[in-house]
Amino acid sequence: MNGISPGVNEKEWTDDVTMSRRIVLASRPAGAPRPSDFRVEEVPVPRPQEGELLLRTIYLSLDPYVRGRLGYAHTYRSASPLLPLDEVLPGGTVCEVVDSGSPEFTEGDIVLADLGWQSAGVRSAATVRRLDPDVSPVSTALGVLGMPGFTAYVGLNLVGRPNPGETVVVAAATGPVGSMVGQLALLSGCRAVGIAGGPDKVAWLRDNGFAAALDHRSPAFADELAAAVPDGVDIYFENVGGRVLDAVLPHLNAGARVPVCGLVSEYNGTRPAAGPDRLPGMMSLILSRAITVQGFTFGPYTASHQQQFLDETAPAVREGRLRYREDIVDGLEAAPTAFIGLLGGANFGKQLVQVGPDPTR
Amino acid sequence: MNGISPGVNEKEWTDDVTMSRRIVLASRPAGAPRPSDFRVEEVPVPRPQEGELLLRTIYLSLDPYVRGRLGYAHTYRSASPLLPLDEVLPGGTVCEVVDSGSPEFTEGDIVLADLGWQSAGVRSAATVRRLDPDVSPVSTALGVLGMPGFTAYVGLNLVGRPNPGETVVVAAATGPVGSMVGQLALLSGCRAVGIAGGPDKVAWLRDNGFAAALDHRSPAFADELAAAVPDGVDIYFENVGGRVLDAVLPHLNAGARVPVCGLVSEYNGTRPAAGPDRLPGMMSLILSRAITVQGFTFGPYTASHQQQFLDETAPAVREGRLRYREDIVDGLEAAPTAFIGLLGGANFGKQLVQVGPDPTR
Repeated sequence: MNGISPGVNEKEWTDDVTMSRRIVLASRPAGAPRPSDFRVEEVPVPRPQEGELLLRTIYLSLDPYVRGRLGYAHTYRSASPLLPLDEVLPGGTVCEVVDSGSPEFTEGDIVLADLGWQSAGVRSAATVRRLDPDVSPVSTALGVLGMPGFTAYVGLNLVGRPNPGETVVVAAATGPVGSMVGQLALLSGCRAVGIAGGPDKVAWLRDNGFAAALDHRSPAFADELAAAVPDGVDIYFENVGGRVLDAVLPHLNAGARVPVCGLVSEYNGTRPAAGPDRLPGMMSLILSRAITVQGFTFGPYTASHQQQFLDETAPAVREGRLRYREDIVDGLEAAPTAFIGLLGGANFGKQLVQVGPDPTR
Repeated sequence: MNGISPGVNEKEWTDDVTMSRRIVLASRPAGAPRPSDFRVEEVPVPRPQEGELLLRTIYLSLDPYVRGRLGYAHTYRSASPLLPLDEVLPGGTVCEVVDSGSPEFTEGDIVLADLGWQSAGVRSAATVRRLDPDVSPVSTALGVLGMPGFTAYVGLNLVGRPNPGETVVVAAATGPVGSMVGQLALLSGCRAVGIAGGPDKVAWLRDNGFAAALDHRSPAFADELAAAVPDGVDIYFENVGGRVLDAVLPHLNAGARVPVCGLVSEYNGTRPAAGPDRLPGMMSLILSRAITVQGFTFGPYTASHQQQFLDETAPAVREGRLRYREDIVDGLEAAPTAFIGLLGGANFGKQLVQVGPDPTR
């Protein structure tokens, strides 16, 4: 097991599933979310009807894309509709089945579900997927073997289409998407250059096969990047935006690919950015170097490629050829602060919230 | 024959090929080129050696990309090196073989060559391609059946990949690239929306099957575009940049493709554009709508697709299913003014210079 988990199972968890604690959107954040934009509630949980499951949350996934659904950010708007006020924040969860109205599941089963930021709830059995703790730790279904890992796989392999010997640059490179992008690039015979914030993260990149590891907080970041890509950049996996993009652009090679998966540094923006206008220069670069900039989400690739992704990566994770980190905070009430930190890069690895005890550990 | 040609063959052409008139770059243009940036010279023409041809220019092609090779434009820089001062301006030409050092060609053959802005010159026989006047007018080798037509074919069919029923928007739509893009879109079962400058051009678009034809000079252009694309835009073929791009962006559908072939409205720019900075908004749009923006040139597709392009389009041109316009000015000395006009949209159809008599007409 190469993930990191605090000893949270020592905590005294409540196992009352007749009531659900949940976190709802109290107000739309203006810029960076604040704790007061979230509210904790307690509501009764209905009994499961036929075909339904009563679920208890073990792990909740916190993901940057959720910021786009909260509104009031200027530059990024999610393709999904805004989350209404007073609704539960969305998020993937690993849950235990507590009561089953479906012949396909029994109490004690561990499943992947979309319960959101709440401690218990009811879902149709058709919307969950059973997890096998013997294959890999169940929390990986929210990270390296889940949506972030699959996003990395789609973006690098299907959008970026790496060739051996090419240089791949990825930012947020210790995060669940970025770390997978870098390691998949290495497995494809590419030279992976990782960017992260802070010496601990940079050290982790060096220890995990990245050819170069850069700290975007360094005052000399742009020069350090230039030195790290002597043959230019063939794939820039864009998941942060901002000044990392600025630093990478001059180094893009002819025919470079830029899969766009996220722009986390811009999600909290509230105003149009000041000039000069960089768009004409970007379009000119795209033209003169025949660059492809392609936004994507994993969704359209699920039916065609998710099984292949799992077949390829699950053994690699189990055997330690694909490594990952988890950053787990304790208790549902810690979710807002952890989410706020995530948008600023405070997490080190996949950000999870342990909402209840994990019976598989 | 659906091209338009003035009665230039009445002109008294000199047929002296011992001297070549040529136009060289006298100074790098600051912003829009001026006539004084060009200089006419007369130089002796060498005799062709073995394997070489002495060529007399009939038609010279003027193309916007040449601006990128002249330098001093801020936003666009050609991938090719800058043209040195005092060198002949580059350009495709249709020529007559006057003296042949190659067994493969005889006097009177009409060939496609890269002689540039000059009336006569010597080229290796290996660099030219014989044209058959019985297949189509030889001038089309510089337009609808030449580089501009192939550029449209590559950009629309191979980069844009149109599906029947989709909406395709193209600007400079009466130009040699844009008119081909629109008509190829129609042949693919798409709805083509053309943008041009001035009522004559707009009328030509209406007469040639475009579902909507818009004048970008109209004060209500953005509103008119919105009304013309009720189902959004699936492919925006980018060949102008500037405010046309701005107007199209909000209408791009999820999964839209933006082949980038040119940015002619920006080629003369000398300063960074003033703010606000539109790049973050563009990247956000690319992300949230899974848009692909792809710069391209026809070059990498020549070996794999040029013959297929000719096989598909030459019959369509001959039968009038693909229509085109030519805008021909008389005499090499007219090239600088016509080129300056081209960068401002003054041409109506493929801009050619008739440098010498066309024996095939």
